[in-house]
Amino acid sequence: MALLNKDRLFPTDPSVRDIARGLYAEVANLPIVSPHGHTDPRWYALNEDFENPAQLLVAPDHYVFRMLFSQGVPLEKLGVPRVDGGPVETDPRAIWRVFASNYHLFRGTPSRLWLDHTFETLFDLDQPLSAATADVYYDSIDARLKQDDYRPRALFERFNIEVIATTEGALDDLRWHRQIAESGWNGRVVTTYRPDSVVDPDFEGFRDNLAAFGELTGCDTGSWRGYLEAHRRRRAFFRQHGATATDHGHATADTADLSQEAAAKLYAAVSTREATESEASLFRAQMLTEMARMSVEDGMVMQIHPGARRNHSAGIFARFGRDKGFDIPGRTDYVQALKPLLDAVGLEPNLTVIVFTLDETAYARELAPLAGAYPALKLGPAWWFFDSPAGIRRFRELTTETAGFYNTVGFNDDTRAFPSIPARHDVARRVDCAYLADLVAGGQLREDEAVELAHDLAYRLAKNAYRL
Amino acid sequence: MALLNKDRLFPTDPSVRDIARGLYAEVANLPIVSPHGHTDPRWYALNEDFENPAQLLVAPDHYVFRMLFSQGVPLEKLGVPRVDGGPVETDPRAIWRVFASNYHLFRGTPSRLWLDHTFETLFDLDQPLSAATADVYYDSIDARLKQDDYRPRALFERFNIEVIATTEGALDDLRWHRQIAESGWNGRVVTTYRPDSVVDPDFEGFRDNLAAFGELTGCDTGSWRGYLEAHRRRRAFFRQHGATATDHGHATADTADLSQEAAAKLYAAVSTREATESEASLFRAQMLTEMARMSVEDGMVMQIHPGARRNHSAGIFARFGRDKGFDIPGRTDYVQALKPLLDAVGLEPNLTVIVFTLDETAYARELAPLAGAYPALKLGPAWWFFDSPAGIRRFRELTTETAGFYNTVGFNDDTRAFPSIPARHDVARRVDCAYLADLVAGGQLREDEAVELAHDLAYRLAKNAYRL
Amino acid sequence: MALLNKDRLFPTDPSVRDIARGLYAEVANLPIVSPHGHTDPRWYALNEDFENPAQLLVAPDHYVFRMLFSQGVPLEKLGVPRVDGGPVETDPRAIWRVFASNYHLFRGTPSRLWLDHTFETLFDLDQPLSAATADVYYDSIDARLKQDDYRPRALFERFNIEVIATTEGALDDLRWHRQIAESGWNGRVVTTYRPDSVVDPDFEGFRDNLAAFGELTGCDTGSWRGYLEAHRRRRAFFRQHGATATDHGHATADTADLSQEAAAKLYAAVSTREATESEASLFRAQMLTEMARMSVEDGMVMQIHPGARRNHSAGIFARFGRDKGFDIPGRTDYVQALKPLLDAVGLEPNLTVIVFTLDETAYARELAPLAGAYPALKLGPAWWFFDSPAGIRRFRELTTETAGFYNTVGFNDDTRAFPSIPARHDVARRVDCAYLADLVAGGQLREDEAVELAHDLAYRLAKNAYRL
Repeated sequence: MALLNKDRLFPTDPSVRDIARGLYAEVANLPIVSPHGHTDPRWYALNEDFENPAQLLVAPDHYVFRMLFSQGVPLEKLGVPRVDGGPVETDPRAIWRVFASNYHLFRGTPSRLWLDHTFETLFDLDQPLSAATADVYYDSIDARLKQDDYRPRALFERFNIEVIATTEGALDDLRWHRQIAESGWNGRVVTTYRPDSVVDPDFEGFRDNLAAFGELTGCDTGSWRGYLEAHRRRRAFFRQHGATATDHGHATADTADLSQEAAAKLYAAVSTREATESEASLFRAQMLTEMARMSVEDGMVMQIHPGARRNHSAGIFARFGRDKGFDIPGRTDYVQALKPLLDAVGLEPNLTVIVFTLDETAYARELAPLAGAYPALKLGPAWWFFDSPAGIRRFRELTTETAGFYNTVGFNDDTRAFPSIPARHDVARRVDCAYLADLVAGGQLREDEAVELAHDLAYRLAKNAYRL
Repeated sequence: MALLNKDRLFPTDPSVRDIARGLYAEVANLPIVSPHGHTDPRWYALNEDFENPAQLLVAPDHYVFRMLFSQGVPLEKLGVPRVDGGPVETDPRAIWRVFASNYHLFRGTPSRLWLDHTFETLFDLDQPLSAATADVYYDSIDARLKQDDYRPRALFERFNIEVIATTEGALDDLRWHRQIAESGWNGRVVTTYRPDSVVDPDFEGFRDNLAAFGELTGCDTGSWRGYLEAHRRRRAFFRQHGATATDHGHATADTADLSQEAAAKLYAAVSTREATESEASLFRAQMLTEMARMSVEDGMVMQIHPGARRNHSAGIFARFGRDKGFDIPGRTDYVQALKPLLDAVGLEPNLTVIVFTLDETAYARELAPLAGAYPALKLGPAWWFFDSPAGIRRFRELTTETAGFYNTVGFNDDTRAFPSIPARHDVARRVDCAYLADLVAGGQLREDEAVELAHDLAYRLAKNAYRL
Repeated sequence: MALLNKDRLFPTDPSVRDIARGLYAEVANLPIVSPHGHTDPRWYALNEDFENPAQLLVAPDHYVFRMLFSQGVPLEKLGVPRVDGGPVETDPRAIWRVFASNYHLFRGTPSRLWLDHTFETLFDLDQPLSAATADVYYDSIDARLKQDDYRPRALFERFNIEVIATTEGALDDLRWHRQIAESGWNGRVVTTYRPDSVVDPDFEGFRDNLAAFGELTGCDTGSWRGYLEAHRRRRAFFRQHGATATDHGHATADTADLSQEAAAKLYAAVSTREATESEASLFRAQMLTEMARMSVEDGMVMQIHPGARRNHSAGIFARFGRDKGFDIPGRTDYVQALKPLLDAVGLEPNLTVIVFTLDETAYARELAPLAGAYPALKLGPAWWFFDSPAGIRRFRELTTETAGFYNTVGFNDDTRAFPSIPARHDVARRVDCAYLADLVAGGQLREDEAVELAHDLAYRLAKNAYRL
């Protein structure tokens, strides 16, 4: 028995499935380029054992625990730490059993695909996970995690990762990246510049962060010019640690292009007192354009990830804090929102701005038309809630007709769930090959073109777009 | 010749179709659980003959007459009564002939599927309906309607309905439900509490309704506390007549959570004079949260049905009144709108709030992420304009990846067209089995899981979610 | 070798493909009815040779040059003229080579399908276009363009065009249409009344246009009554040149129905001074209702094409002017927007208003419910960014269930790329036949009905809806 169907996610018509199989065979074993994600650089620096099955697969994965919570399992029973330090389950086997006995809840979700892929390919498990097999699973996985060849660097190599990007805040000292570089290990782990904490006036401790930002860079963050210079230096510092990209996670895609005088005045306001809502919005919007301008100067690829309404549940936020599966997408405009930035730098041939969305209605209506016109703009892949098989398919169906394939940038796994990385790339490769096979079968593409595109989508586009 | 293809709505690939057939065979004959609908309880109480084919199949079905009207058939010719009592067609055979000779207009619509299912399975007709067969149809159906075994209770049993919910306003005396209960018939017909007429300040006669509400309950609806108590008593009265759920049909999904002082003040305003637009909106929003709180107390399942812009055509409304097919959906926000209610009671494990939508863009972007996180929230099925085969499929494709199957609640037929009920459930079962078969064929689900899910989707989820 | 797969765009399942083939065989050779487009009437009047391959296939097609531009090819290298008259590439062979060597960018786009269709069926080319075949292509096409049977009228006949509509502004003298009529050639080329330049206060030279409008018609466009009368006369003049329709390209679908007094006052304002933004919006909105009223009088079919944010890039507009691929769709409301017009004339059985959209979220949510209720309203086909195979399919899937087929109006090619017309209609016919075949295979339609519908969708609906 096996958990995985070898033809999973391929078209079911035999002749089309054969085309998909052929394309997939070409790309199944290509190295993984992971240009955007949230794995912890400390893992690669220290190369210690992963703790236990629950810590590896349940606790860090908000896809997993929010689904269990939605069906009535208290987060405490899953070991999610409380803000007030109150008691939560600490026995990993107990957590694992709760997860196992509720595994049916994941039917039809991508988590199920990723987990089964991990169970079978990484841990050689072949019986379905359930209450009945919970302990067999726990013991098998736990035993493996104690082996040297299941440590982070060994897994990195086993996963055939050519390069992985992590994401660090502007104030991070990048010590783990330095340690990796100095260790002599030849795995390529690069950082990404994520300056939200010094760009968003609503970020906790914003003004303190500005002070720290000044100290760290030796710039006068009391002035607009000094503040911008601090960004320039910090970007250079991140580039020294491998960064080729920046990342910006705003609630909206709003951009602005104020005069430098007006921007300086706005900075003076938000850096010295509580910002009003409209000041905070405008400052974030202005900073996207400033970051884009710096990208024209220094060549860093800019990523804009808008659309999440963070911490939707006041109760969960109070009890468990951020990143607990309660970030909910909302409608997101791009056409008006990006115009100021695009008017400023959108025709720059050497700039790359990669835009993501949590509002799929923008794919065909706004994003593909924009990316199919502006040289600076590229479309990030199906993201977060939408990196499912059906979500990746919708992305292709709704963007290709207008933007083609070459205004897209390959796949992002965007995950902190390290063992799921090969599974996620495998799903993306399969779904893309299935899409290409359908185009070939429908007479929209020749097979030799599909082979070339399969390589592009699985490997080359990401490498080129992110300049890796 | 037959009207119905036995493999209708299944995948066309032979190997996948076989999976779908197998799943469907498991659930095709399960009893019908119909937790939300608009059939007339009087039918089951009095058990009289249905009048004639036109009264049974054309006049009450706004899906049918609005399509004919859109193609130039005056509503008068279809016997739709005018507000001013002016002349309309009264000969049922003449109405039937207009319908029959325009039957081609329904090609590709779900009405066509439901009607053909009714014609073949209930009336043993096997020639396509058209001008040529209009009279044969009329005579055959009319003859059957005079038979005892075509009376409401006989059909209820023939349709294998385990339980059906009707919907009554807060001021209804529920006499038909009482009469059903007292009749000794063992068909299970339950009511649903729909308080729009005493919750929406824009409802016709709102303040008179409040007075009647007070009389009926013996509560002082002149005060906020008395008004809330009237709801509590009325909900208890409905529960005595089988109700397990409430239903709320607002234009938006807006909720609010004012302090009780502010709510009392708002109630004092809207209950004593014409409400302003914003007062009316805020009061409706507040009442959703109050109803949710009462559901925490009394266990009634809460249904929110937002999104229709009612009575879009001023001309139709003036000439023919409400519910004439001119209720048009519009964009509907859920993320901001539901936050106050969810902050108040969204983490209650024993509360069930079922949310519906007429804006399919919310499925993947807002509703599945919300239902996949909040324990109190479940997703109502594809509804109204979207209970078509393609609409039901879109619902699954856009919600399952994030909310899974177990945050959904099975099918609602939501109809006043009694004979269409088996057809509608059959369509839903077939489409769900087709979806499951595709997941099995694509390696996303094992066949034993699909069998279990087919039962869940066809029967168990509705029964459990509605506590029936 | 061939560029075209004879079964392209059909379902891949053999049994369903056979049904699609059969349906397509019925309609593949039907004459083309092209009720909305932008070919130049001068071509048919003068019947001169097309200049060269680049002028025929690259320069006029913003689908083509914006894609190349999005990937870094300067518009100057494609021969797109600059506003300032600055130097651009003038060698058509050089332009062609740039296009040819970037032809891979069009993979997966409809342009690729249309171009390959043109290459193979019109120019007998059978090797894929690429840098290597650029000159072979150029020479072959160029040689053909010098032949008499590649002149506009010969192509018109070869393409089997029964009637084609062009689009002219309200101030156009229609000289080319007169010349066609007087030439004795029996090709049917009709005009369409597009009054944006005298209806939109934001149009360049609006007040000068009003003066010219008065002179041309002998009406006093200084008064509201005179202005309306000028429209009436101009519409009559266009009808003398074959027009059966009007066309209105507004940014939104907003309509208004002011009293004639208020409208006259608004006209007095916008016709004598710079209009404010809200005055300009309201005037455009009012004029849609006025145009609809005139359509009730004179029987002209009204087309509303809303949703494009024109000239999104300030830089491109400054350097290259309008229509350079930088018109970007945005969210578009119909339910509120059309209500004033529909309340005024929406129930008129002899009026036809055809509504288009660039916001596909409106198909199922707003447009199909409106068109499936109002007798005056019909749905225009998938348009502009959405006349791709997948876009046409989405249109059918999202509108048929509620509006059926008979509230739609067949296909519009909407193009200025003359040689692509047969390709575009062929794509639409294939996709519609594939959709019908799927309905037949899924048991939703009988095959005899599908045959009738295939004829309707390919030919009859356009002819009837546009009264051609």
